Amino acid sequence: MRSRISVDSVPSAVATPPQPYIHKVGKSPKQNLVEEFTATVRETLFPDDPLRQFKDQPHSRKLLLGVQSIFPIIEWSRHYSLKKLKGDLIAGLTIASLCIPQYIGYAKLAGLDHSSFVPPLIYAFMGSSRDIAIGPVAVVSLLLGTLLENEIDSKKNPHDYRRLAFTATFFDGITQFILGFFRLGFLIDFLSHAAIVGFMAGAAVTIALQQLKGMLGVKNFTKKTDIVSVIRSVFEAAHHGGKKNKKLFWVPAIAPLISVIVSTFFVYITRADKKGVAIVTHVHKGVNPPSVNEIFCTGSYLSKGFRIGAVAGMVALTEAVTIGRTFAAMKDYSIDGNKEMIALGTMNIIGSMTSCYIATGSFSRSAVNFMAGCNTAVSNIVMSVVVLLTLELITPLFKYTPNAILASIIISAVVGLFDVQAALLIWKIDKFDFIACMGAFFGVVFISIEIGLLIAVSISFAKILLQVTRPRTAVLGRLPRSSIYRNILQYREAAKVPGVLIVRVDSAIYFSNSNYIKERILRWLTDEEEYLRENHQPRIQFLIVEMSPVPDVDTSGIHAFEELHRSLQKREIQFVLANPGTIVIDKLHASKFADLLGEEHVFLTVSDAVMTCAPKNEEA
Amino acid sequence: MRSRISVDSVPSAVATPPQPYIHKVGKSPKQNLVEEFTATVRETLFPDDPLRQFKDQPHSRKLLLGVQSIFPIIEWSRHYSLKKLKGDLIAGLTIASLCIPQYIGYAKLAGLDHSSFVPPLIYAFMGSSRDIAIGPVAVVSLLLGTLLENEIDSKKNPHDYRRLAFTATFFDGITQFILGFFRLGFLIDFLSHAAIVGFMAGAAVTIALQQLKGMLGVKNFTKKTDIVSVIRSVFEAAHHGGKKNKKLFWVPAIAPLISVIVSTFFVYITRADKKGVAIVTHVHKGVNPPSVNEIFCTGSYLSKGFRIGAVAGMVALTEAVTIGRTFAAMKDYSIDGNKEMIALGTMNIIGSMTSCYIATGSFSRSAVNFMAGCNTAVSNIVMSVVVLLTLELITPLFKYTPNAILASIIISAVVGLFDVQAALLIWKIDKFDFIACMGAFFGVVFISIEIGLLIAVSISFAKILLQVTRPRTAVLGRLPRSSIYRNILQYREAAKVPGVLIVRVDSAIYFSNSNYIKERILRWLTDEEEYLRENHQPRIQFLIVEMSPVPDVDTSGIHAFEELHRSLQKREIQFVLANPGTIVIDKLHASKFADLLGEEHVFLTVSDAVMTCAPKNEEA
Repeated sequence: MRSRISVDSVPSAVATPPQPYIHKVGKSPKQNLVEEFTATVRETLFPDDPLRQFKDQPHSRKLLLGVQSIFPIIEWSRHYSLKKLKGDLIAGLTIASLCIPQYIGYAKLAGLDHSSFVPPLIYAFMGSSRDIAIGPVAVVSLLLGTLLENEIDSKKNPHDYRRLAFTATFFDGITQFILGFFRLGFLIDFLSHAAIVGFMAGAAVTIALQQLKGMLGVKNFTKKTDIVSVIRSVFEAAHHGGKKNKKLFWVPAIAPLISVIVSTFFVYITRADKKGVAIVTHVHKGVNPPSVNEIFCTGSYLSKGFRIGAVAGMVALTEAVTIGRTFAAMKDYSIDGNKEMIALGTMNIIGSMTSCYIATGSFSRSAVNFMAGCNTAVSNIVMSVVVLLTLELITPLFKYTPNAILASIIISAVVGLFDVQAALLIWKIDKFDFIACMGAFFGVVFISIEIGLLIAVSISFAKILLQVTRPRTAVLGRLPRSSIYRNILQYREAAKVPGVLIVRVDSAIYFSNSNYIKERILRWLTDEEEYLRENHQPRIQFLIVEMSPVPDVDTSGIHAFEELHRSLQKREIQFVLANPGTIVIDKLHASKFADLLGEEHVFLTVSDAVMTCAPKNEEA
Repeated sequence: MRSRISVDSVPSAVATPPQPYIHKVGKSPKQNLVEEFTATVRETLFPDDPLRQFKDQPHSRKLLLGVQSIFPIIEWSRHYSLKKLKGDLIAGLTIASLCIPQYIGYAKLAGLDHSSFVPPLIYAFMGSSRDIAIGPVAVVSLLLGTLLENEIDSKKNPHDYRRLAFTATFFDGITQFILGFFRLGFLIDFLSHAAIVGFMAGAAVTIALQQLKGMLGVKNFTKKTDIVSVIRSVFEAAHHGGKKNKKLFWVPAIAPLISVIVSTFFVYITRADKKGVAIVTHVHKGVNPPSVNEIFCTGSYLSKGFRIGAVAGMVALTEAVTIGRTFAAMKDYSIDGNKEMIALGTMNIIGSMTSCYIATGSFSRSAVNFMAGCNTAVSNIVMSVVVLLTLELITPLFKYTPNAILASIIISAVVGLFDVQAALLIWKIDKFDFIACMGAFFGVVFISIEIGLLIAVSISFAKILLQVTRPRTAVLGRLPRSSIYRNILQYREAAKVPGVLIVRVDSAIYFSNSNYIKERILRWLTDEEEYLRENHQPRIQFLIVEMSPVPDVDTSGIHAFEELHRSLQKREIQFVLANPGTIVIDKLHASKFADLLGEEHVFLTVSDAVMTCAPKNEEA
């Protein structure tokens, strides 16, 4: 009688049960083993469906598409126009002027004396990013230099040092090529964004401090510090100018070259090197000689070269792929990470045979390239040719370039890697990410660049492991005047249903977390029972586990369910499942757990389950 | 006009929008950093809330509870009764008779000659499992023997071999203790059930083949093989008998001891050893001497001992904790895995100082203990005392025990580890798990026990990595006559809403998968758009991402959202989120992505989102 009145007294829309028709939990059509395996492999290695365009095409077309997919230049060169060339030419000249002094500086970081004009050429033919600027970069040069120096003293044994550098470059290329070819590119996703931000900032500080030492070496001599500080302030002003006005992008870009020219000229005229100003002195002239014979094929240096190459190769890849993706997203074209890796790998393999060391995409030069209006990889070709001509014709003049100028150029290039904004954002969004970021940063600054990298990778992995061992669970309650069940901690108005405990599990239930999930659910139950006992309320009779967010269970997960079911039986509580997904329902049947539980205890929604389990409560 | 008619012509329950009142997406109260950090640490390291009982207690009571939690014997001994003692006595005697011949056999596997009666004693005071039977086990003995033999030849240098064995045992204990003390016990969850099944079966086959060699060594001599085969068939018959009738549990349990006694007596009488029957010959008499001084404290053997101890310790832990949990679930009491590890660690540390090698929980003896009606860890004390007396009094007689008998006892003990049923179930439930299982099995059988273990761990990790890099996504459709949206592959009757694509993401969005999720969503969109274009249907205007199953996003996840939003804007599609959880909504706000997207594009349910985005479609 009472329940009738209460039904009449609330608005009809609420009194009507929201789902008058109870759906059955669906099953998907059975897949056989081969289909299942193929689907998993495809989703893991080919999530981007790279063969889509090959579908339903004649053989000749397939061949053309195949060649095109290795050399994207064949495709885009057909639509190439004079207008595009203009943009590429300007961009190419701009990045060339930026990179020439950087090349010399970075080669010094790596302890080498050769520049890399071959890799950008190869990349132009094989790469699919339109904006990336290829060449040596500060962080990888420093990492390579540090790792090489650990093995061979570059002062005592410069020949073997050079050989090991080419060996490392060769294996860097091999690593990148193999990762791309076997479509294992997703492995670089294990370096988290936060760890990269910290690592880069740490590397920037390390490099800047190193260079500052070089700059301060000049301090004893008249006026030089002033020149340096003037040049630096010019840089900074230009840098800001370039940021404020897009038309002025070329100011920061050519400032380094101009200051190199001016200072070199100044030193040459005054012969300041005789008065103690440190200069570059040794610059290798001319085109890079072949270096195939210099790569170690046997001995302990082979394995050392492999190790160094693999480590540096992963870091270089991460940088290049991040840049490629960032600019592709800006211009809304897509990049196949694995194809990029093949291109990067090939260019480094060939680079290692032509006296070049590891090249990758440069953050700063790619940004300049983008702002200068590049359209295709032709800007890399232009840059490469300009670098080649410079090396051939005017290299000897660089001999008089003061080291302090190179140092300041390197410093201004790496300053951009110290990204405080990104770190602040990471702090705001995710504290754990911030720890990873700081760990990598302090690791690089206070210990070494390798240790920093190791810390970054370890913390990233720790986060993944934490995610899979300690998934979240939530107790659900019903939102007033609805059949929606939500986390009671998030929705204060959500009310628990008397006699029923509803728990949602937010993860696949695998061996790594099955035991935790079981115990966590039992703990929710114990807490709730304790509370109910203290408040003299009716005891729990049904435990509903909301399975919507659970994409999969494995054998250990099924075991956990069985144990949970047994524990609940001992406490006289009925175990109920709501909305298991396709794979879960298949496995519940395969393992006979569905029979053990009873089909009637598996529902399509939490609301259905509550209605059936506690019809009186639902009406009230 | 038309829409009015259509509304009237359908039943009213459907025409009424199911949720007349649209709820706002809830926010949970802000936590400060310390609270957030504490909550994470607590959930990671103390998911079982071990300090719960200490809450609101006076100091003296807290101290008592603290001592009790280290020595659970204080608690349960107060309720100990004569009736319980009877069960424990029978169980203790039974497992003692089972373990004496096993001890001798397993010590041979490990290349040692001492038995372990100290660890079960220590465990009885500190452990919380009531059913586990502690002692050396076949797999760990073999693993330890193999790892030790890799470093030192036990024939050439038995003294150092012994010392390294105690060093390894010491560090095995230290590893277990530290894992427990720092509550890192969840690390053993990374060995998946499937991998363990494969590993154990592989170890069983390896051990059985090794022992078979020992048994076949007897073949040349009269009648011996017959005895062996007779004994084996007796074993098997007894084994079955024991399985069929719970009262007969003691038949398989004491059969080994009886056969040892009978055969030893037979050899002693006939002096068959003189005629070529291999016998044990050397058995160490008396109580174990102290061995603290034998543990390596310096040198390369220290680090080797540590490595061997850590590996064997993890395997031993996995076995003990699995056993503990299994029997606890059967009798419905709970076990604190971390406290168990402290108990196991302590007993092995003390064991290493009293000439014992690694002890852990034995599958077969624990099962016998359970069936024999043990009530508490007192059965371990009984067993320990019986073993001690046996060692002291009648050890010299074991000298005449034929090796073939020991071999057959070991074989019959490890046969149970070869669990075909479990492997079949794994095959049915999860094919990937089955690969892990087979990988571990064949690794152990065809390569070595360490490689098998490595394969098991690697495959387990690969599965975790796959899980976090390639989460599942699903396109949702509306179930007829409801406001429920479900995977269209699972529910054939679910219908897509024209102009709207609804995608559900089934995982936290972290750096390891953010890029994949973004690209996968875009691929769902491209596929759908292609299909619509081919069928001349209206284009997609809204992309709704169902966030219910997404417990968390990190910085990379937010970046992926931003890039997705930008891509969708280019295609003139509105990005809409449905039901983000507390943490996700907080982070969307912290990163300002919520502002970028617009608060009005975040909904409580998919149904709300669809109603607002495409009201015409909803009505039709």
